[in-house]
Amino acid sequence: MSVAIVLAEQASVRADDRGLNYGDGVFETLRIHAGRPLWWDAHWQRLRRGAAVLAIEMPEHDAVVHACAALLAPAADGVLKLLLTRGGGGRGYAPPEPAQPQLLISRHALPPPWPAAGGRVRWSQLRLGIQPLLAGIKHCNRLEQVLARREWSDPDIHESLLCDALGAPTCAVSGNLFVLRDGVWLTPLLDRAGVAGLCRQWLLAQGIGHEQRLCVADVEQADAVFLCNAVRGILPVCAVGERQMALPPQLQVVMQALAAAEPAFARTR
Amino acid sequence: MSVAIVLAEQASVRADDRGLNYGDGVFETLRIHAGRPLWWDAHWQRLRRGAAVLAIEMPEHDAVVHACAALLAPAADGVLKLLLTRGGGGRGYAPPEPAQPQLLISRHALPPPWPAAGGRVRWSQLRLGIQPLLAGIKHCNRLEQVLARREWSDPDIHESLLCDALGAPTCAVSGNLFVLRDGVWLTPLLDRAGVAGLCRQWLLAQGIGHEQRLCVADVEQADAVFLCNAVRGILPVCAVGERQMALPPQLQVVMQALAAAEPAFARTR
Repeated sequence: MSVAIVLAEQASVRADDRGLNYGDGVFETLRIHAGRPLWWDAHWQRLRRGAAVLAIEMPEHDAVVHACAALLAPAADGVLKLLLTRGGGGRGYAPPEPAQPQLLISRHALPPPWPAAGGRVRWSQLRLGIQPLLAGIKHCNRLEQVLARREWSDPDIHESLLCDALGAPTCAVSGNLFVLRDGVWLTPLLDRAGVAGLCRQWLLAQGIGHEQRLCVADVEQADAVFLCNAVRGILPVCAVGERQMALPPQLQVVMQALAAAEPAFARTR
Repeated sequence: MSVAIVLAEQASVRADDRGLNYGDGVFETLRIHAGRPLWWDAHWQRLRRGAAVLAIEMPEHDAVVHACAALLAPAADGVLKLLLTRGGGGRGYAPPEPAQPQLLISRHALPPPWPAAGGRVRWSQLRLGIQPLLAGIKHCNRLEQVLARREWSDPDIHESLLCDALGAPTCAVSGNLFVLRDGVWLTPLLDRAGVAGLCRQWLLAQGIGHEQRLCVADVEQADAVFLCNAVRGILPVCAVGERQMALPPQLQVVMQALAAAEPAFARTR
């Protein structure tokens, strides 16, 4: 059986969908700019990696591209979400064989802009559970992120930084983390928890930064900090907790490199 | 807003339901016997505890009882599932305020019977991530269980035992674990991972066993092992990996105690 492809506004999701019951799925959120999804191939490959980890059949590529076209037609900026679940299933954790996966496609508005002068971030009290089998992929078990996001409501706080259960800074609730140490950008290893974001992947591919296990002091004592994700691009940080952070020229260099490659990110969102 | 209560066969779940997108919900599976759900109050209280952890509004109790009545009318044995999700929400982890949670109610067949002479269990290669904030509640982030259940397809293997990330035996894929050591039944602490099952809770309330941090040797060298859950009751284990396990009189005592209190469990399922 092939994977059903459904536009979300027309979708009637079965009550026994395993995405609904167990978070048994993976998703992608793509930036739309001028009617075009950014980093399509990278998103598709990550979806494929996640689907392989969960052993969910992938939809047919060209059919997905075709289905997305209607949602992309309005040239306004926005967000495209692909949600691939294993589809309906009996009660119980054993997936049905064969499964009938479903890809839900939906369009959303951009999030509110990130402050151009930098956002303020805090440390989350929640520590991410360590699960190497799921680390890196964008699966639908996101209660940790939901709980972490509920820790604050102050609109002057823009994000939280999360450590894993062994105390290693790993990511923000909705983005990856980069810190400047001794003139080098470092980003946490994601072998134990976190999502391997595609803006992070793009930066690493440009030679901007490298992966390393970080400790809290690496963040607290950094010369600069930014977050990033594929919808908003680079998100400069002006304060971590009580500590003010500079926005040095090295941060401008990174933002300009991304904006030069992808004009969608010329303005901080 | 009150919580919508929907029978699953009639349900049209929104594509933006947070249960579907993030596993943002909790559930209960109740044994139905002779048209009556067992341990209703205990299930309701656990649903309430889980909803409180996630800050999801609870449905009105009497309305749920009323809605369940139609599904309970056939007197045949079965399973009743209650699935409470936070309902629809915008893209992003921050829950909408106010949310419009939804309770989906569905009826299912009993699982195939567990061997009366004992089931064979294996050790899972997967180690459960440690997340004290979610440990014990029956939330919908169940990818670890889905992956663990996919590790074997041999029909002569009936369950897997799971350790947590620190190596402590915690539970089976779909049940809790009891081991007999020096004449005492022990069951793992569930402060780091696992679901606090209601058959386990019933047994502990009867003074049958107590909670303790276990190590693998406690299981490997146990004088007897059983699993349990609220749908199937006591599930005797006749082998853990290559090691055969006895089904001693102490195990019969436990099974008889449960069967005396709840005749639904007089026959091993």
